[in-house]
Amino acid sequence: MVSPNEWIKDTAIYQPGKPLEEVKRELGLTEVIKMASNENPWGCSKEVWSKGVSHPEDTPFYPEGAAPDLTEKIAEHIETDPSRILLGNGTDEIVKMLAQVYLKPGKNAIMADFTFPRYEMVTKMTGADIVKVPLSDGCHDLKEMENRINADTQIVWICNPNNPTGTIVDRVTIESFLERIPPHVLVVMDEAYQEYVTHPDYPDTIALIDYNPQVIALRTFSKIYGLASFRIGYAVAHPSVIQMLNRVRDPFNTNRYAQSAALHALTDQTFVLYCRNQNRLGMKQITSQLEKWDLSYYPSQANFILIHTGFAGDDVFNHLLRAGIIVRSGQVLGYPTSIRVTIGTKEQNELFLQAFAAFLKEKGKI
Amino acid sequence: MVSPNEWIKDTAIYQPGKPLEEVKRELGLTEVIKMASNENPWGCSKEVWSKGVSHPEDTPFYPEGAAPDLTEKIAEHIETDPSRILLGNGTDEIVKMLAQVYLKPGKNAIMADFTFPRYEMVTKMTGADIVKVPLSDGCHDLKEMENRINADTQIVWICNPNNPTGTIVDRVTIESFLERIPPHVLVVMDEAYQEYVTHPDYPDTIALIDYNPQVIALRTFSKIYGLASFRIGYAVAHPSVIQMLNRVRDPFNTNRYAQSAALHALTDQTFVLYCRNQNRLGMKQITSQLEKWDLSYYPSQANFILIHTGFAGDDVFNHLLRAGIIVRSGQVLGYPTSIRVTIGTKEQNELFLQAFAAFLKEKGKI
Repeated sequence: MVSPNEWIKDTAIYQPGKPLEEVKRELGLTEVIKMASNENPWGCSKEVWSKGVSHPEDTPFYPEGAAPDLTEKIAEHIETDPSRILLGNGTDEIVKMLAQVYLKPGKNAIMADFTFPRYEMVTKMTGADIVKVPLSDGCHDLKEMENRINADTQIVWICNPNNPTGTIVDRVTIESFLERIPPHVLVVMDEAYQEYVTHPDYPDTIALIDYNPQVIALRTFSKIYGLASFRIGYAVAHPSVIQMLNRVRDPFNTNRYAQSAALHALTDQTFVLYCRNQNRLGMKQITSQLEKWDLSYYPSQANFILIHTGFAGDDVFNHLLRAGIIVRSGQVLGYPTSIRVTIGTKEQNELFLQAFAAFLKEKGKI
Repeated sequence: MVSPNEWIKDTAIYQPGKPLEEVKRELGLTEVIKMASNENPWGCSKEVWSKGVSHPEDTPFYPEGAAPDLTEKIAEHIETDPSRILLGNGTDEIVKMLAQVYLKPGKNAIMADFTFPRYEMVTKMTGADIVKVPLSDGCHDLKEMENRINADTQIVWICNPNNPTGTIVDRVTIESFLERIPPHVLVVMDEAYQEYVTHPDYPDTIALIDYNPQVIALRTFSKIYGLASFRIGYAVAHPSVIQMLNRVRDPFNTNRYAQSAALHALTDQTFVLYCRNQNRLGMKQITSQLEKWDLSYYPSQANFILIHTGFAGDDVFNHLLRAGIIVRSGQVLGYPTSIRVTIGTKEQNELFLQAFAAFLKEKGKI
């Protein structure tokens, strides 16, 4: 039998949040609320289906590989040059492409412990070493990340806001980090939740990239734009980095309807603003209640919150699941007594708080 | 500046067939016929848009990563077990995954010269060596491919029917090849055009896989099913191989609507039969005329034909392009005086033959 590369054998398979379909099948429920995968509870812009998902007559045709129309539209929106943009089949794919281009056995990548697990997985897939730096009170510890950089370090992964804690690295901190680190290191700023951030000190990474070829920003249409089903995300980086990534890009990596859906989603910034505002209101709705219950949590700038429950995350998860609410147990995220909850609509948040209250009462906590 | 892996620098960027949009833009044409990328001129099954592309309310939700419904449907259709199937964002993605799992510097992969260029690209991306074995009269030379296998050979890529020649490796030849080669080699049978084949000696690869863990079949929904826009293909292999591929699979590699479109496309085998029949008729329409003109070509079992024109492929390509017909110049496919033409509808074939006749007359060939 053919042998796989030795490092592949040690790579784990990603365990995603439970899909609605699976939970409905398993529990025989018809009404299920998913607050597990940081998807948009307000759907997506109406433009997506009225204008984006059109032209069924184009079904047999391959998409344009480099997605020129969407690339141009994004460039205009974020005010950069199209040569600095690369589209991916979700940013998941771009994360893997970065690893494929820049990592190999003998090299290493630095990441937080705990953060989005994908960085560790793709690093492992290349046979490179993984250097984990513990979060400090839920935040990236850039001082310690800098200390761990050596001659073999190729990538520093920074998830900002961080998943699963929701905390941010601020502008001053990242700028002084970039000033101090050696030039052979690439700093990947995963900004999947960027559009949700309201904090005034959040960095303008696109502006940083204008003059710093070490920085890459990753953005996605899967979160606030509500297009997770279609798979589309993008990288912003120096053209030399984009050109390298293009060498490992599948010729038709983004599908035709995703390109078009994203293009039309971008035109509707009113929808984006609405979701950002509703998300902050929902965050307040949940944190107010947590404070009444005397439960702690990390201050989140994203569309989810990591709640310290004081009980095994899996127990809380299972209790909520039986009530038809899917959250993420902290036990798979590095926080054994926490749960990560996506902010939902006002009604969904209320149902979550009710089910969570029932659990806390059962346990004698409230 | 961060250095990419040395083998990435040598990897070329894939040059796809010209997209319709690009040609229309460049030439200012409104009516363009694309016979360049082996897409389905009859579109796709009506089921795809009436039932497959539905549920806009699911837009914000990630797809089910492993696509269980589609996997089961495919397993039923090709009569195998779901554990033997892996879905990809087009087979392009699976080809890259195979390279990622099984190739690395010091190992090698064997492929025909000339065949689908993707095998060479993904091999190069891993730093493994590329071993090219010339085709014999347009056909895979399995005898010579066997001779070139050594202890470091991990993969033998066989495109069947072969792109760009359209020729097939028959059942007896592949079976005796498999009996003789050492067990450490994986044989990847890329069967993107399998559904078009009418030749009685074409191998039943799915049956071979039942007892031979060395064999992998790749199939796609981009060709006869007419879903190239959606990006979906699959691998059939021993469960141990599928499990390895799953370790490098992006968590949500196939998009939600592609999964659903493919599932509904599978239910309409009448459409598939119709396309297969029309394709054979169109092939005959073109080859009859070529024989009258005394032009040679390879006998093709696919939905395209490699025609030896006797003139520079780029010249024929450019002449046809000005007439609003996009074909593939043989100069990028290893056949400098050929063109590769996708079989179109009866009317498209007629327009192609007329434009080609004009070229041949201009050159004094007819």
